[in-house]
Amino acid sequence: MTDDAGLREECGVFGCVATGNWPTDLDVAHTICMGLVGLQHRGQESAGIVTSAGTRESLFNIKKGMGLVSSIFQDEDLAKLRGNMGIGHTRYSTIGCSEMVNIQPFVVETLHGLIAVAHNGELVNAKQLKDKLLRHGVGLSTGTDSELITQLLTHMPDCGEPNGANWVGRIKKAMQETLLSYALLIMHGEKMYAVRDVFGNRPLCIGKIVKSSEDTSNDEEVLGWIYSSESCAFNGIGAKYYREVLPGEIVELSKDGIKSCCILPRPEAKLPAVCIFEYVYFSRPDTILEGQRVYQVRQRCGRQLAKEAPAAADLVSTVPESATPAALEYARELGLPYGEVLCKNRYVGRTFIQPSTRLRKLGVAKKFGTLNENFRDKRIVLIDDSIVRGNTMKPIIELLRKGGAKEVHIRIASPPIRYPCFMGINIPTKEELFANRFPLEELAAQLGADSLQYLSIEGLVKATQEGIENYVMEGKEKKKLQKNEIGHCVACLTGKYPVNLDW
Amino acid sequence: MTDDAGLREECGVFGCVATGNWPTDLDVAHTICMGLVGLQHRGQESAGIVTSAGTRESLFNIKKGMGLVSSIFQDEDLAKLRGNMGIGHTRYSTIGCSEMVNIQPFVVETLHGLIAVAHNGELVNAKQLKDKLLRHGVGLSTGTDSELITQLLTHMPDCGEPNGANWVGRIKKAMQETLLSYALLIMHGEKMYAVRDVFGNRPLCIGKIVKSSEDTSNDEEVLGWIYSSESCAFNGIGAKYYREVLPGEIVELSKDGIKSCCILPRPEAKLPAVCIFEYVYFSRPDTILEGQRVYQVRQRCGRQLAKEAPAAADLVSTVPESATPAALEYARELGLPYGEVLCKNRYVGRTFIQPSTRLRKLGVAKKFGTLNENFRDKRIVLIDDSIVRGNTMKPIIELLRKGGAKEVHIRIASPPIRYPCFMGINIPTKEELFANRFPLEELAAQLGADSLQYLSIEGLVKATQEGIENYVMEGKEKKKLQKNEIGHCVACLTGKYPVNLDW
Amino acid sequence: MTDDAGLREECGVFGCVATGNWPTDLDVAHTICMGLVGLQHRGQESAGIVTSAGTRESLFNIKKGMGLVSSIFQDEDLAKLRGNMGIGHTRYSTIGCSEMVNIQPFVVETLHGLIAVAHNGELVNAKQLKDKLLRHGVGLSTGTDSELITQLLTHMPDCGEPNGANWVGRIKKAMQETLLSYALLIMHGEKMYAVRDVFGNRPLCIGKIVKSSEDTSNDEEVLGWIYSSESCAFNGIGAKYYREVLPGEIVELSKDGIKSCCILPRPEAKLPAVCIFEYVYFSRPDTILEGQRVYQVRQRCGRQLAKEAPAAADLVSTVPESATPAALEYARELGLPYGEVLCKNRYVGRTFIQPSTRLRKLGVAKKFGTLNENFRDKRIVLIDDSIVRGNTMKPIIELLRKGGAKEVHIRIASPPIRYPCFMGINIPTKEELFANRFPLEELAAQLGADSLQYLSIEGLVKATQEGIENYVMEGKEKKKLQKNEIGHCVACLTGKYPVNLDW
Amino acid sequence: MTDDAGLREECGVFGCVATGNWPTDLDVAHTICMGLVGLQHRGQESAGIVTSAGTRESLFNIKKGMGLVSSIFQDEDLAKLRGNMGIGHTRYSTIGCSEMVNIQPFVVETLHGLIAVAHNGELVNAKQLKDKLLRHGVGLSTGTDSELITQLLTHMPDCGEPNGANWVGRIKKAMQETLLSYALLIMHGEKMYAVRDVFGNRPLCIGKIVKSSEDTSNDEEVLGWIYSSESCAFNGIGAKYYREVLPGEIVELSKDGIKSCCILPRPEAKLPAVCIFEYVYFSRPDTILEGQRVYQVRQRCGRQLAKEAPAAADLVSTVPESATPAALEYARELGLPYGEVLCKNRYVGRTFIQPSTRLRKLGVAKKFGTLNENFRDKRIVLIDDSIVRGNTMKPIIELLRKGGAKEVHIRIASPPIRYPCFMGINIPTKEELFANRFPLEELAAQLGADSLQYLSIEGLVKATQEGIENYVMEGKEKKKLQKNEIGHCVACLTGKYPVNLDW
Repeated sequence: MTDDAGLREECGVFGCVATGNWPTDLDVAHTICMGLVGLQHRGQESAGIVTSAGTRESLFNIKKGMGLVSSIFQDEDLAKLRGNMGIGHTRYSTIGCSEMVNIQPFVVETLHGLIAVAHNGELVNAKQLKDKLLRHGVGLSTGTDSELITQLLTHMPDCGEPNGANWVGRIKKAMQETLLSYALLIMHGEKMYAVRDVFGNRPLCIGKIVKSSEDTSNDEEVLGWIYSSESCAFNGIGAKYYREVLPGEIVELSKDGIKSCCILPRPEAKLPAVCIFEYVYFSRPDTILEGQRVYQVRQRCGRQLAKEAPAAADLVSTVPESATPAALEYARELGLPYGEVLCKNRYVGRTFIQPSTRLRKLGVAKKFGTLNENFRDKRIVLIDDSIVRGNTMKPIIELLRKGGAKEVHIRIASPPIRYPCFMGINIPTKEELFANRFPLEELAAQLGADSLQYLSIEGLVKATQEGIENYVMEGKEKKKLQKNEIGHCVACLTGKYPVNLDW
Repeated sequence: MTDDAGLREECGVFGCVATGNWPTDLDVAHTICMGLVGLQHRGQESAGIVTSAGTRESLFNIKKGMGLVSSIFQDEDLAKLRGNMGIGHTRYSTIGCSEMVNIQPFVVETLHGLIAVAHNGELVNAKQLKDKLLRHGVGLSTGTDSELITQLLTHMPDCGEPNGANWVGRIKKAMQETLLSYALLIMHGEKMYAVRDVFGNRPLCIGKIVKSSEDTSNDEEVLGWIYSSESCAFNGIGAKYYREVLPGEIVELSKDGIKSCCILPRPEAKLPAVCIFEYVYFSRPDTILEGQRVYQVRQRCGRQLAKEAPAAADLVSTVPESATPAALEYARELGLPYGEVLCKNRYVGRTFIQPSTRLRKLGVAKKFGTLNENFRDKRIVLIDDSIVRGNTMKPIIELLRKGGAKEVHIRIASPPIRYPCFMGINIPTKEELFANRFPLEELAAQLGADSLQYLSIEGLVKATQEGIENYVMEGKEKKKLQKNEIGHCVACLTGKYPVNLDW
Repeated sequence: MTDDAGLREECGVFGCVATGNWPTDLDVAHTICMGLVGLQHRGQESAGIVTSAGTRESLFNIKKGMGLVSSIFQDEDLAKLRGNMGIGHTRYSTIGCSEMVNIQPFVVETLHGLIAVAHNGELVNAKQLKDKLLRHGVGLSTGTDSELITQLLTHMPDCGEPNGANWVGRIKKAMQETLLSYALLIMHGEKMYAVRDVFGNRPLCIGKIVKSSEDTSNDEEVLGWIYSSESCAFNGIGAKYYREVLPGEIVELSKDGIKSCCILPRPEAKLPAVCIFEYVYFSRPDTILEGQRVYQVRQRCGRQLAKEAPAAADLVSTVPESATPAALEYARELGLPYGEVLCKNRYVGRTFIQPSTRLRKLGVAKKFGTLNENFRDKRIVLIDDSIVRGNTMKPIIELLRKGGAKEVHIRIASPPIRYPCFMGINIPTKEELFANRFPLEELAAQLGADSLQYLSIEGLVKATQEGIENYVMEGKEKKKLQKNEIGHCVACLTGKYPVNLDW
Repeated sequence: MTDDAGLREECGVFGCVATGNWPTDLDVAHTICMGLVGLQHRGQESAGIVTSAGTRESLFNIKKGMGLVSSIFQDEDLAKLRGNMGIGHTRYSTIGCSEMVNIQPFVVETLHGLIAVAHNGELVNAKQLKDKLLRHGVGLSTGTDSELITQLLTHMPDCGEPNGANWVGRIKKAMQETLLSYALLIMHGEKMYAVRDVFGNRPLCIGKIVKSSEDTSNDEEVLGWIYSSESCAFNGIGAKYYREVLPGEIVELSKDGIKSCCILPRPEAKLPAVCIFEYVYFSRPDTILEGQRVYQVRQRCGRQLAKEAPAAADLVSTVPESATPAALEYARELGLPYGEVLCKNRYVGRTFIQPSTRLRKLGVAKKFGTLNENFRDKRIVLIDDSIVRGNTMKPIIELLRKGGAKEVHIRIASPPIRYPCFMGINIPTKEELFANRFPLEELAAQLGADSLQYLSIEGLVKATQEGIENYVMEGKEKKKLQKNEIGHCVACLTGKYPVNLDW
């Protein structure tokens, strides 16, 4: 699947808290900046960082901008982003148009001081929440779900505490008002909270930075703690994977370390609803989700696909780059040779120029070159991770046929996408989805393929769940997740959403 | 007085509503843009324009930026600012630091649709209002009084109307919550409201644009209506002066024309408190305030100063440019020759470079050249409109002495500034004010002047009030203001504020 | 005359050389930057600074940009512009379109090292020089006269010296190739040269910076030397006026001080041709040209105009701001009252937005407000410094009549402009010049004025020349200029150019 | 090999000429822009496009900027780049620092009109040429080889033709002055020339755009002709590969079509010297060079490497992305399983922030994630295309060992780089090259690898040359290249340069 074809992740969030008092040994702003570079694949439209000295009265240092992380933050910006804690955000704009005012993290002043909020997700009951806030007389200035959740936090009564600043209480109440989806970072005073909705729909994990391994003392010295949408950002900042924030959990970081505040329960009889497309497409392949490497899940999808939908062919290949692990395993499983047939120009995606009519007709050819000698007169099985609109796959098949392919069989390492997502993924309307536009038996012909087969929903779920090894700390011990603590959202495949959407 | 010496006006506001239905003949965005250029002297730090088609459901078009109006708005921006009504704002930052997020007009979504608000002034009870809003659970994101007033409007209960959108009612309630100071423009749905606090502290007037005079038909065709902080902006957009918004008045414009909604009364026994420094310094000399030209008031101040504080001298001169009318009349009154002695480099004020130590010592010399031949061996009376910190006047006198002046007598066409302003003017702290730093009899010596005299408070009030000819429409007739409807704020001179500041 | 009406100066040049060895006490980059701010009125489109440590092998530090000096140079730029000498330039674009590549100073590598060149003027034989260079095989990349003169310098043979780097020889040869007009600064190795064409058409003067006057030692310590297009830039940088670069002179600055290299003679029987419009319009009034203050010349023009063209009137006024000295003296000479009638919005000139049709018709009204009370029912004599196209004066007169003026008599403190300038001033084509478009007796009617009179050419020359007190150093003594060393270019008034233009 | 490790290509050049008269059906500016996007991998620092209507007097339209093609050219820029021919350039800065003034194409005015020049390569006798030009009196303003060659073209005598504009003659003479290396596009008047040095060191090929294939008429209608550094840019603009510009050839395009002007001979007994690293690293794998696909050469290198340097291992893998074809073939040849072990963050390369000390130590980890499950407890053969400094490979091996690899064997699909390149490739100094820093037998230990083997020079040349199928048009017939017309530059491997570098 290529970028212009359809699905878009909303955001990446990243937080860092140094241990000990200011000034600490940890380069907080640099760490957040490199962390956001590691999450750049989750949103390339804008980014922001907010830091704080981490005292109750600390003012916040803020820098936001449009574009890639690397173009927004210069050395002088990082120098100004002083502090020993901070949160960052990188985003596409699914909700709220592309303007400076919408760039996260949001900072607002509340009765109990400044808070900064970074949010990944989409609130399924946004309309109701907005209505409630508007009725309460709050004027909203950005049109984003993230402003809603920030005002919701501000707005909550003080939960019976005399000093009024019981933020865990506030967060709990806010979580009860909106069940999904969100992975949230909240910075306030001396604390930074991480929150994941009770379904765990959006990913969020924890890492720690220890003093460099050259020091061979027995007790490792912790320099700081990290929150990140994905663990793939840890390598680039020298952090170790610690564990996930669990569905419904509120975790607190401070200079004194980490503390799990509570785990809110799911509505009765409900399983988690971790977004399965994090495995299929969004997450970087080296990320660890629920204790397993995303790459491995994609490999298992390829093997499963080989079992469900083998093809008689001379060559197995991939639509670069996300389908490669599935393609390699599909080939291995069937004992077919694997080879490359497409060469991707990674600079095309960034061109915002209106093409001339002549160039528009060229479509996907602008993005791919073909390696004709590799497939001339051969029967190709081309593996892709998913089909959204189908407008990428069709011209690819044309290119391959023009380049001399004898047959082109398409195998998709995930099931047909048929329903919209209301939980943070930008999916075209139902009518635009390829799998809805034609009867199943016509789809191959519509693409110009000799055959087309998808992975089954059961196959995808099996490939996803069989490697899960997720743990949570209980006291000093790790406890493995139980069966009933595992579950994935496949609503875009089945139309069955984790909650009633009229909620 | 030169720009870096002290007083700073907060803002200018400008609104335009075309008559008739969209699309109208009136170039609304261009008109607002040129209107803001006409108010540029009231704020050069940032500006914004918001336009609307003027229906209940209209989305708003927004463009804001840092810098001068001319650098923010390009042709393509104006093309996008479609609509048949709109408001604009240009500002310095007295409250709320210099960031994009603080640029007005503010746009927020409310229960009853979008509103846009442009505000000139400063709320004397900002702290209490903020506390009230925060206690209500509203998170504030900009730190400006203008956000406070916008949230206050949003926050007001709906005043008993079933449809909940009685905006005049809301505005009235908000006005009761904060007595001064503000000149406000509020755009919502099909209406645009102008509001002036009951003391009339900040100026706001109304103009109209008629079809060009070449059409000699008897009944002039009104193309649109204008709100503006000052009437000096009318010439540049082809508008005619209509009248002022009165203290406490809410005026409504729509495509159907103008309507005075109500005039809220002042607290018992209180006179208006129009800022007298609009006459002394802030307003452009060709502006009409309270029915009289600002330039004329400055002339009268000069004449009065000549009566109160004549000087034996060979030459009367001015610190360009705002003191010139007073200086010319001072000279005429005393029969002394008038001439120029200083030449101002108008580009210096815009330089934000940290000067080197050597250059810093040069101080005001960077800003002024002297015309030595004009004053060599002469006794100069130098007229200025005001002295704030005194750090401009002192080096000017040095320059004149170095250039050969025999004597330098300073005459100030306003009284000593001794108290801070809490109503929208940025005045240094009491300790920094020149008139507070030394006994009166030492001030001349501190400046290095041969003598120093100020206009009396009574003299200033007399010079200001004797030409007032303000009118308000009553039905089809203009009614002249009564004596008890005239009053000016001289709190920075006397320390007596229009309201109890502990309010 | 207002900016959009016609004449445009090409540029300002500024150079600074610190005495003693690097690093010196003098803040060279800051000094040049503030010097350019002092010359900003001579060109507001772009600016550049080049600095050097001032050794033979020094690399150059360069910063250029579009816009005002204050927006181009930030603190970090000045920090990078290290060195103990440097030249700067600010410009409009008469020749060579508005692109980065055309911004001066030009830096080129030559056989003998880098040179940097800043140029004010226009080469009357540019076409021939260009042809010569092109025939020699030099490809030209900017289309500016300044590139021509730079290549010409580079191109010159080495004048018989073995080391080939006789730059004074090169400069002399280049001066013989192009007689006017230019004021040039050339930085190379340890030296900085200032050059003025033999006619002295463009201004160039020398200043020096001494240790602050607090040190009362007898021998002043010179910190550095300055070249500047105008002396008005000296005040802002703490420099003292030293003298002018004379027509045809090459002056050399280095860390060792100042040296006059030579004075090239004019073609036989030719007088200097100092641009008389420097006095009429271009120079800042506090600048000293040829030993006299520009302001004084403008005063004398006003007095002379009063003698040549008195008017029966109730009020003398000015088109702000350059005509004010003439207007004040005109009034004094005739014993008429002086007063202000127009108020200028200094922000209008910077607006680059295409006006809508309606706004375009408003014309000059956008730029001026009127002070009606000052002139209602009066006969006005309005003084301006010049009329170029006439399209500013006509709507001003309309504004005044609309404001209640009984009569409007125009008096111009310079003669009719009838011919183009080929020496650095951007004048409209002959057909566009107001004085050429109608017979003399119709001009007043065309403007809508009750009468119109100009200063005579003889009157202007007399007013200009009677105060000249120019001196040159001969050894240790100053020598006053002789009569035959004084002369001014009035070609735009007479059509008689200093040299044969077919040259 | 990763970007920060060493080699850097200088540039990509692209030209387009529409057939027929202006305005043509071809979207010239859009075509060049998308063509440059297709060459973006050859230079990401800056880009420029120059277009012309293609008549003798046509002015040129120019747009240049810093950054990626997609960020430089907006719709409005392309709209202004009118014309029916144009050239574009994208570059890194090997020679000439990173400033606007150095961005190509260069445009200069010559005696015979404007020329625009785009250059890929580096002149081995740049110093001599520069000296010659400086001695001739040409001042050089950019410090680039491309300015040298442009001035050289301008400078050439007119080759005996009366009208002086024999550009083919000029080009020939210039080619005799500098033998390599260059691929040049020259636009002048109605013609566009492509030139390749006699050794063919830098690539340059020709494409054509025909009316879309839907028109089934027999004679295809040619809309325009294309020059491009690589054929990979053709797919994205709908062009067909036509042929290469041959070593020493001058090709002329005009609205009338294509014409081979001449082929200059190589110095006696010399073979061509096509840069072999275009195959190893620089060119995009789908590009066709000398009639063969670059990808195929890389595959053959992998097979040859398997024969020369087999390894006993459990897994063959690649350093993504350029080594993948070699790795896949290496695995296939030895019958070993292929799998991915590294995951690249493609956003890291663009970060220009100074890392903090802690982050700097992390080095390459910022760029790669590891897929530990794929290689835990396995013996890996890791294939890379080349080693330059070795500072990337060392930390990669560390990452792999930390991830659980049992053994790591390095196999490089090209020979050791030991010598600098003076022909357009930015190679570190001899001392910095990994292969020069230690004895061969120590290299593996230095990297921390279990073994290290390179492809032999003979193996690389064989793999490169065995598929060459290059043709040239002779009249209407294609003629295949002879054996003695084939040759490659391996100077960076052997130190034997195509020409004497003291030349």
